[in-house]
Amino acid sequence: MHPLFYPKNIAVIGVSNNKVSGMKYVIALESFVRDGGAVWPINPKYPELFGYKIYPSLFDPIIPNIDLAIIAVPARFVPDVCRDCAKKGVKFAVIFSSGFSESGKLDLQKELEKAVSESKSKTRFIGPNCLGIDNPFSNVHFYPGMESKKGNVSYLAQSGGTTARLMLYLGSQGIGFQHVVSAGNSVDLSATDFINYYREDPKTKVIALYLESIPNGREFIEAIKKTTPIKPIIIWKGGQTDVGAKAAASHTGGLAGSYQIWKALAKQYGVILASYFEEFAELVCAFSVDQPLPKDRNVGILVAGGGIGVEYTDLCIQYGLNIPPLTDNTIKRLAVQFADVNTSFTNPVDLGEYGYIPNYFAKALEIVASDPGLSTILFVKEAERFKIFEDILLVKDIEGMTIKTIGEALKEIKKPVICSSSPNDQRIKFYEARLNFKNKMIQNNIPVIDYIPNACVVINKLVEYNNYLKKLEKLGKD
Amino acid sequence: MHPLFYPKNIAVIGVSNNKVSGMKYVIALESFVRDGGAVWPINPKYPELFGYKIYPSLFDPIIPNIDLAIIAVPARFVPDVCRDCAKKGVKFAVIFSSGFSESGKLDLQKELEKAVSESKSKTRFIGPNCLGIDNPFSNVHFYPGMESKKGNVSYLAQSGGTTARLMLYLGSQGIGFQHVVSAGNSVDLSATDFINYYREDPKTKVIALYLESIPNGREFIEAIKKTTPIKPIIIWKGGQTDVGAKAAASHTGGLAGSYQIWKALAKQYGVILASYFEEFAELVCAFSVDQPLPKDRNVGILVAGGGIGVEYTDLCIQYGLNIPPLTDNTIKRLAVQFADVNTSFTNPVDLGEYGYIPNYFAKALEIVASDPGLSTILFVKEAERFKIFEDILLVKDIEGMTIKTIGEALKEIKKPVICSSSPNDQRIKFYEARLNFKNKMIQNNIPVIDYIPNACVVINKLVEYNNYLKKLEKLGKD
Repeated sequence: MHPLFYPKNIAVIGVSNNKVSGMKYVIALESFVRDGGAVWPINPKYPELFGYKIYPSLFDPIIPNIDLAIIAVPARFVPDVCRDCAKKGVKFAVIFSSGFSESGKLDLQKELEKAVSESKSKTRFIGPNCLGIDNPFSNVHFYPGMESKKGNVSYLAQSGGTTARLMLYLGSQGIGFQHVVSAGNSVDLSATDFINYYREDPKTKVIALYLESIPNGREFIEAIKKTTPIKPIIIWKGGQTDVGAKAAASHTGGLAGSYQIWKALAKQYGVILASYFEEFAELVCAFSVDQPLPKDRNVGILVAGGGIGVEYTDLCIQYGLNIPPLTDNTIKRLAVQFADVNTSFTNPVDLGEYGYIPNYFAKALEIVASDPGLSTILFVKEAERFKIFEDILLVKDIEGMTIKTIGEALKEIKKPVICSSSPNDQRIKFYEARLNFKNKMIQNNIPVIDYIPNACVVINKLVEYNNYLKKLEKLGKD
Repeated sequence: MHPLFYPKNIAVIGVSNNKVSGMKYVIALESFVRDGGAVWPINPKYPELFGYKIYPSLFDPIIPNIDLAIIAVPARFVPDVCRDCAKKGVKFAVIFSSGFSESGKLDLQKELEKAVSESKSKTRFIGPNCLGIDNPFSNVHFYPGMESKKGNVSYLAQSGGTTARLMLYLGSQGIGFQHVVSAGNSVDLSATDFINYYREDPKTKVIALYLESIPNGREFIEAIKKTTPIKPIIIWKGGQTDVGAKAAASHTGGLAGSYQIWKALAKQYGVILASYFEEFAELVCAFSVDQPLPKDRNVGILVAGGGIGVEYTDLCIQYGLNIPPLTDNTIKRLAVQFADVNTSFTNPVDLGEYGYIPNYFAKALEIVASDPGLSTILFVKEAERFKIFEDILLVKDIEGMTIKTIGEALKEIKKPVICSSSPNDQRIKFYEARLNFKNKMIQNNIPVIDYIPNACVVINKLVEYNNYLKKLEKLGKD
């Protein structure tokens, strides 16, 4: 699939005189053009649009071999354009157009399927009803101005909106992507094909999928089964409930299948299931950073402030995690290091305001993480309060020093460490402090999860994936 | 309690030479001083600090009658200072100092209790281990620079951090407060006293409580029972689990009591329980706006984009809400108004991109809200995309027009309407667009709840409170 993600020449078939929507692919691909390839906008109606030369036909003699065509003509013309692509020898075509089974147009869907099946020995198709490909490494983008961050997540979604949403949400927090596909209704290439491709791609660490349906159950299961022992697959299934599945059917036109089956599948093959967007995003974040997996559900909590410690403890317990007591040795080591001033050396460990002194905190983190009864460390840093604590504690650059000292401590800690930022003030400057800290922490391989329920879900899913791998290992040995 | 919330003269006993922490009350009250009262900082060690004259004693002849004293001396001196307050005839005293039962100092706790019991015929006490009072109307603040927003929420919390947190979180989103108390360990005045006061206060619409323990169960229940028929009480209980309760005990020193009991209590007396901070905050927001209560769990969902519709439907169903089909009449009215271009006139209603055209949307909202089978309308507006849609749809000022047209539609709609903003891009400018929209919507009595699970919880709790009131009404009639 390399030419799909790294196309040399791209044809956009069906550009229109609406500068925003009708030319968006052409504009989005301008940066790509600067990288050496070329974009060929096609529409017989216009010789020129907004300063771009428009070509009358894919068969115009000047148009070279095409790696990727984007088909953006009205639905009724799509089947013929698919055949044209095959005739021209286009390698991959994205069918952007919608108006097939998802709109109840079953005849047109059948006609499309026929055209695709006649053409796919020459051209492979993505869509219809999709945005196609986004690849931060080759500058192929969904939208003009779409800023895709480079990283190790490969993603496929059956909903265009959801595809862009995860990229924007995670990208702006420091998590980047390797390959991204908005697959739409998948009349040809489907999630299964891309799972197989992502599995073999050495630069992909995590596979993220938003699926509303699976067209080819057996092959899909086969692909998953082969993949999860090598890299995690995180699936957010749209249409988990009967009513949701009905809504999904009118969205992408597929059959959703019972969520019970998905859950059973996930359990059997070690797939990580997310139930809605933010949970999905946080799971992708947590699996994409370079950290070990937790061996069990025992969590050590490290906070600066009693109320927060109670809150995190309550939520962890309610989500099935354990907050075991510290060993005597850990308590003794903490007591030697820290005076008993508004501090509490149980689990949750409350360091009081001293928790904001970076080297104090890093030392406490190291001591708590060395406790043999704990498998994950969850700590809270209210980045928005760094500036205030700089004045109170007379310490400089709390943000920078916190990141530096935690980074150093992490080298010794062979357990997953997760941060939560416990947002208070929503005004811009406080938000900005949190966002900057989050980006920097993620760069240092520490996921920052604001929402406590999601932090709990993430830890549980990390444990479950670890258990799955351990089970496979054991089966392999037996 | 008027002198407590609107004190004329305030004494701060135990100011220190740390400009940030030791003088914070004095600095925080500067704005109050400008309003006509006076603050009297007291410490025999310093004649002057940071340009403020410091008085040697509460009994200095120049010091007038004191409405509110803030006691910020080391714990061991607190009992004597309490007696001094009574001798001086101070009306209310906030014991800021900590180091009593919450630190395991049971002897000192007993000594404090004795001093308070001897003094409370003259002086009523708040705390220890608390921040005291914040009142946006009288400019009495916890911290220097604390910006408290004026509104109709009256709040009490047993954790100082949590007190400020809710004020900052909601205040920055447009929800304001009437009275706020950080009550700490409540050696004298407790949650019960303030519930009774808030109940009778005509400017309080919602009572919000963060509690880790209740010292006087029977009176507390009596206060709640009298209050919930008149105004909603929302309680976030810290220490819902055994481990959390243990952590709470070392935090505020109280006995948490089984959460099962709290749940039973909530059910019996119509109290709204929140399980963690953000849920608590969203509930306070939803109850503080001026909207009717929903009569049942039937929700109509209105979105612009298929994926979002599926997501909201899935979550609503999973949280026990119903997404019933629209009546034929509603479908017909929608079909007459809107062309079938990427739209779906089932429930969830998907208006496609047209959903961002303000008057189209307001019309759809009005039609959907008039469906007799729906009791709450939940709609999604991605405020961060308003600018993009202005270019695509060639519409001006989507934000302003959306707020205006929804406001007009609301006049006709006698059902609760809730907005969710479905955040994508986390970068500052997108966040800012969401935050501004949220503030303006809340000013227009429409709660905006970002996190879908919380939107579902909020709708459920609104229904439960409505059911409680209906049950009382029925009992009254029988």
